[in-house]
Amino acid sequence: MEQLEVDLGERSYPIHIGPGLLAEPGHFGQALRGRQVLIVTNSTVGPLYRQRLRTTLREVTCFNPARQEREALEVDAVELPDGEAYKTLDHLDPIFTRLLERGFDRSATIVALGGGVVGDMAGFAAACYQRGIDFIQVPTTLLAQVDSSVGGKTGVNHRLGKNMIGAFHQPQAVVIDTDTLATLDERQFAAGLAEVIKYGVIGDADLFAWLEAHMGALVDREPAALTTAIRRSCEAKAAIVAADEREGGQRALLNLGHTFGHAIETGIGYGRWLHGEAVAAGILMAADLARRLGWLSDDEVHRIEALTVRAGLPTRAPADLSRERFLELMRVDKKAQAGEIRLVLPTTIGNATVTADYDPDALAATLDEHHALPARLGPRG
Amino acid sequence: MEQLEVDLGERSYPIHIGPGLLAEPGHFGQALRGRQVLIVTNSTVGPLYRQRLRTTLREVTCFNPARQEREALEVDAVELPDGEAYKTLDHLDPIFTRLLERGFDRSATIVALGGGVVGDMAGFAAACYQRGIDFIQVPTTLLAQVDSSVGGKTGVNHRLGKNMIGAFHQPQAVVIDTDTLATLDERQFAAGLAEVIKYGVIGDADLFAWLEAHMGALVDREPAALTTAIRRSCEAKAAIVAADEREGGQRALLNLGHTFGHAIETGIGYGRWLHGEAVAAGILMAADLARRLGWLSDDEVHRIEALTVRAGLPTRAPADLSRERFLELMRVDKKAQAGEIRLVLPTTIGNATVTADYDPDALAATLDEHHALPARLGPRG
Repeated sequence: MEQLEVDLGERSYPIHIGPGLLAEPGHFGQALRGRQVLIVTNSTVGPLYRQRLRTTLREVTCFNPARQEREALEVDAVELPDGEAYKTLDHLDPIFTRLLERGFDRSATIVALGGGVVGDMAGFAAACYQRGIDFIQVPTTLLAQVDSSVGGKTGVNHRLGKNMIGAFHQPQAVVIDTDTLATLDERQFAAGLAEVIKYGVIGDADLFAWLEAHMGALVDREPAALTTAIRRSCEAKAAIVAADEREGGQRALLNLGHTFGHAIETGIGYGRWLHGEAVAAGILMAADLARRLGWLSDDEVHRIEALTVRAGLPTRAPADLSRERFLELMRVDKKAQAGEIRLVLPTTIGNATVTADYDPDALAATLDEHHALPARLGPRG
Repeated sequence: MEQLEVDLGERSYPIHIGPGLLAEPGHFGQALRGRQVLIVTNSTVGPLYRQRLRTTLREVTCFNPARQEREALEVDAVELPDGEAYKTLDHLDPIFTRLLERGFDRSATIVALGGGVVGDMAGFAAACYQRGIDFIQVPTTLLAQVDSSVGGKTGVNHRLGKNMIGAFHQPQAVVIDTDTLATLDERQFAAGLAEVIKYGVIGDADLFAWLEAHMGALVDREPAALTTAIRRSCEAKAAIVAADEREGGQRALLNLGHTFGHAIETGIGYGRWLHGEAVAAGILMAADLARRLGWLSDDEVHRIEALTVRAGLPTRAPADLSRERFLELMRVDKKAQAGEIRLVLPTTIGNATVTADYDPDALAATLDEHHALPARLGPRG
């Protein structure tokens, strides 16, 4: 098992990574401050892992100062429908209702068991319930394990924009059981690899080279390769989050491919492409624009594209999104300022910058080229 | 004009109090960090004051670093339906929709123009939009001016509990134009006085005595008396908030009468009694319980009751709420811990404590006596 720390002063928390962690009560016991626990999961992950987690939590006890003795936890669970399409304000209601029906108070903890959507929704519900209660991330998809479970960004989508409603709310702990990846379908798995590739491109040329050497092992889900990829990704994310918790500067680099990607997800309707698939195409669009600006060489773009293809990810945006629609959607991105589209662009493999200072014609050319071509390797679902 | 400061380090902000402030651009200009402004108001206050505020904001300019010049603000407005019954997650949607339709970004500011419901909803929308944008409180009811606009508590109700979903989000400024009280109806005005009385009971025997001497002038809305009552209330609240921003201890004292009051509001259905009316009855219930515990003298209880009656406020809970229903509703209060009902109780006029250590039979007697009697001075609406 590996353990990292996200260093945020009073809000610091550990990330535990390893096989079988869902069955180990210790990490949960350390992170709990009260005895009321609500597991929030979804209709896909719940049937697979909810019972295992409940069994583990049955071994955890909590000190009750009123009775001066240790007591068993009070555990309940809520299952959300599975999918990005349900990541809305409305669909938080079952979480709030259950917390209130059970009389859960400010000392209660939410445990988010699932992928990025579950983590974002459960985390946001924790941020808002009684103006903030604790939560623990138990990510079960590769994407959530390497990205969304770390860093405290929580929230839901609005029909006019993705992740537009939310809060910064750090978890008490992140518990990553790598065994849960065994049940992840291929598209979901590949989607997670998009974010791993991202860490290489924005800040870690060594990780990028390691990925070029080990993409085969990763796609085969070899345990050692998985643990390394997850640990290095979490390290990269933790370092950036510690330096810039609320996205004043450096943290924005994590959005490489995301402004293009969000436009894709919104433009074709949430849930048709997975977030990681849209990000993969977005990274290639950012790389293409960087090439047009003279920052990336043709060779570097080809290396990124080749790695993306080997990961089983799309490298082109869907054919039915026009340049005009793309620009419109990109302007409502959270990074936009006064209508100006700020983009994360790689300057080389292992370095990136946030800028609104680029030739708009180059962006137009990227959008035209990437939307007009039929996807060479689109999502397989 | 008077000015106070809420001292919260980086999150400190000024409170401006005085007649005619809606027409003065200076305070708004100082508080704005960007040029996009969304006024959130309701269908009662909007028609009265929205245009005046827009005219004032037309005089404010904002420096645009991209163009290196000062520009006029971009101002829009959203009108919510008036009433506590609409203070729900659903009813935030028009705010988010307008912000997104206008392409408002993270530098945008929400201006909450209205009473406590508008301030709580607009503030919560500001807390959540793109994970947090600025907002300015422009409270137009006495209750909002002396209480809810100061301190950063924002949120909405859930059908199972009041203010159960929300965030701590401090405003950039509070602008209190005392002229707006001229259009406030009598019930709303009296409801505000309940919170002023509360500050006297929990921490300021001098203020309580001042109120006994000046309640006539306040009820007549004499400007000098109003300004004094608002300033002293804001000072009391600002001091408590500065000492305890997130309600670890002292801040809980502000909830005198609120656990009983919330039970009343929820029990009879939001909107039938005003918040301040429910709090007034709740303060008397807390005083009655404190008397039964031997903390308050009969004379002190009578002084509180007499002042409450003079303010035109109810002193008894509605007749149709049983003891059992009261206890059930009080157990979901945010201050409850593991089902235990924690209450703020006065120990004398000018002092109060938060405790769960009281004789449950005394609470039962208070609930029986206060629900069984017909209200001697119920809300007049």
